[in-house]
Amino acid sequence: MTAILLKGASIVYDTYTGKQLCNLNVYIEDGLIQEITEKSTGFKSDYVVECNKKAVLPGLANTHTHLAMTLFRGLADDLPLREWLEKRIWPLERKLKREHALVASKLGLIELVKAGVTAFADNYFFEDALVEATKSVGLRALVCPPIFDGEFEEHTLSHVSNLVLSQRCDALVKWGFGPHSIYSCKKETLEQIGALSKEHEIRVTIHLAETRWSQVLCEKSFGKRETDLLEECGLLSSRTLASHAVWVTKQEIRKLANYEVSVSFCPVSNMKLAEGGVAPVPELLKEGVRVSFGTDGAASNNSLSVLETIKIGLLLIKHSRWDPTLLKPHEALLIATKNGYEALGFPKHALQTGNAADVITLDLRTPSVICHRSVPLPNRIVYAPVATVDVIVSGKPVMINGKILTIDEEEAKQEFTKALEDF
Amino acid sequence: MTAILLKGASIVYDTYTGKQLCNLNVYIEDGLIQEITEKSTGFKSDYVVECNKKAVLPGLANTHTHLAMTLFRGLADDLPLREWLEKRIWPLERKLKREHALVASKLGLIELVKAGVTAFADNYFFEDALVEATKSVGLRALVCPPIFDGEFEEHTLSHVSNLVLSQRCDALVKWGFGPHSIYSCKKETLEQIGALSKEHEIRVTIHLAETRWSQVLCEKSFGKRETDLLEECGLLSSRTLASHAVWVTKQEIRKLANYEVSVSFCPVSNMKLAEGGVAPVPELLKEGVRVSFGTDGAASNNSLSVLETIKIGLLLIKHSRWDPTLLKPHEALLIATKNGYEALGFPKHALQTGNAADVITLDLRTPSVICHRSVPLPNRIVYAPVATVDVIVSGKPVMINGKILTIDEEEAKQEFTKALEDF
Repeated sequence: MTAILLKGASIVYDTYTGKQLCNLNVYIEDGLIQEITEKSTGFKSDYVVECNKKAVLPGLANTHTHLAMTLFRGLADDLPLREWLEKRIWPLERKLKREHALVASKLGLIELVKAGVTAFADNYFFEDALVEATKSVGLRALVCPPIFDGEFEEHTLSHVSNLVLSQRCDALVKWGFGPHSIYSCKKETLEQIGALSKEHEIRVTIHLAETRWSQVLCEKSFGKRETDLLEECGLLSSRTLASHAVWVTKQEIRKLANYEVSVSFCPVSNMKLAEGGVAPVPELLKEGVRVSFGTDGAASNNSLSVLETIKIGLLLIKHSRWDPTLLKPHEALLIATKNGYEALGFPKHALQTGNAADVITLDLRTPSVICHRSVPLPNRIVYAPVATVDVIVSGKPVMINGKILTIDEEEAKQEFTKALEDF
Repeated sequence: MTAILLKGASIVYDTYTGKQLCNLNVYIEDGLIQEITEKSTGFKSDYVVECNKKAVLPGLANTHTHLAMTLFRGLADDLPLREWLEKRIWPLERKLKREHALVASKLGLIELVKAGVTAFADNYFFEDALVEATKSVGLRALVCPPIFDGEFEEHTLSHVSNLVLSQRCDALVKWGFGPHSIYSCKKETLEQIGALSKEHEIRVTIHLAETRWSQVLCEKSFGKRETDLLEECGLLSSRTLASHAVWVTKQEIRKLANYEVSVSFCPVSNMKLAEGGVAPVPELLKEGVRVSFGTDGAASNNSLSVLETIKIGLLLIKHSRWDPTLLKPHEALLIATKNGYEALGFPKHALQTGNAADVITLDLRTPSVICHRSVPLPNRIVYAPVATVDVIVSGKPVMINGKILTIDEEEAKQEFTKALEDF
């Protein structure tokens, strides 16, 4: 196993505790943080990464995306959700093959790495291709093949549950169920997923209350709100990661908290599709819901950068409540790291000895990051663009000094460009 | 004068016309675009810039900033406007000296260059230091020293008008009046500025209707809306650039249009300070108001990137109207280039022979910019982050292949870091 020394980091910022320390060495071996000290105590390293003018912090989690949709970036801009889906996305998806999903996932993963993301949740077709790409790049993923009661033969419950139950989850890749939404699954299907999730301790991702329309439809069909229906189906638990949660009531928020459901806040996607409303993040947090950040897919964001999503998310919450004091950068980074990892079921990666070494470094030479010494790191990196320089996942170097080591970036771009020709 | 060949540009996108062409050479000499052709017809160049995998487009304008506030970035985050000003900004400003403004402006200019900005408007103290910095870096600026009827001795009308009237405007730097706002100037002062602006054809920048509070105060003090008061003071004309314009009525919008006033839309600053409201950009544009983009200063954004501001601005307009079809990326780029240059009084820089060579190139190798060939360039670069590679202003190379040529970036950063110690 590779041993890495992050040498002389200008700032080591632990998002979990908010502790900010200067001029430290971080020593990584066997996938874990072994030591954080002023002077290295003589460990031998395969990699010595100079971290002068860099900040070291835990890697970011992107808790909602559809990586293979990277192929469709820009092809469905500025449309209402229905037209977006029916006129653009669905016809494109009919042409999608496994080989497309593979190369698109690779390019999406490269983008994630360059944006400091070390773990993500994915919900899309050809998940085995995503897993192949993820393993080659070396990130952590919660992979949840979508389930519909519709026209997608390979995405029925029986097919997906056979697939998911036959997979071995490992340290980097976990499998889960991805029932798309309440409106695209039958109630019995959701109930069966709830039972399987409980029996086999399998995680579930689902689109929840993304639009007012979906809540109205749920009330019409079942006489209850989406969260209440999920409860009835046994789908509210700490294994559940619900994306969006824009249109939820106070009573639903309390229910999500009581059942320890996680929520992925996707402000950019919500604003771009302009379905209205703002996810009630301050209320979700106040009630104790585990909120994290998601970018959504490249067809509705179009960036996969969590830092960009954080800035826009903070702005949206402050703006929509006329209250600039709401949600501080350090809270946002805690949410984007600790909460994200918990939502995905990955180990704690607080910057402390013995924890998983999922670590990134950011470039403190960026002009907009040079601030007065009293400005905490979170404020520097959340409100102005900053470049990721190094990415280490489970102790393995994925990107060092801006160069991705695990796969050939140029080859991945060429394969992706070629795949685009089929659409 | 330097002659530059932008060789084999993958995409040449003219924001003015929306025309997108591939594989072209752009030849620049004597400050102007001399030729845009498939094959170079034998011009001699001092610089040959390889533009394979780059997009060439007109430079962006940032029509509202306070560059020296770059010193205060991060020092006043997450506060309401009044506390932001009184508890943080004003005490900091009391310590501000010319040498601070000089180094802060330099760092701000470096940030502008790296974000593809070729022209900007500034309104802040020590404007002569800003001009010195601007001339050393080589951007275009509309420099408007602020005017108050308050405690700032050097920023009374008589002092500023002596300064502005004694300056020679040149091709790159124009001087104007910067009355801060209606609430910080007496009516007689505004009237005198209106008369001077008309007599000497001098541009004026002013904060207009940034908060609901300022409109309420105007109604209480003068029995009329801010725009009507400006009209009465002779301050509505095509020489006026009004920043923010969040809280304006339909009648005020029509008035701004009739007088050909320009408006700087500053969505990030507005959202971060969370004063509520959204500038009515679709209505302003529909009535024919010349809208452009501003970042505002680094104490309230905290980025000076116009591209980032465009993404957030488009998201905010779509979101606030529940209409994803509003404001398209190509319209946003037209606004950020043509409208911005017009608002600042700089020459046309459409990518056509004979126009001013204020040109930037963007890196098309960025993973998130690789899209299907049918995706227009504006959609690629507006919705996902992209790096600026080359910046040319009035035919002069300011940044080539990511390296700033006009000033020493490292030295500027060191000077800035040293200046921070005084605060």
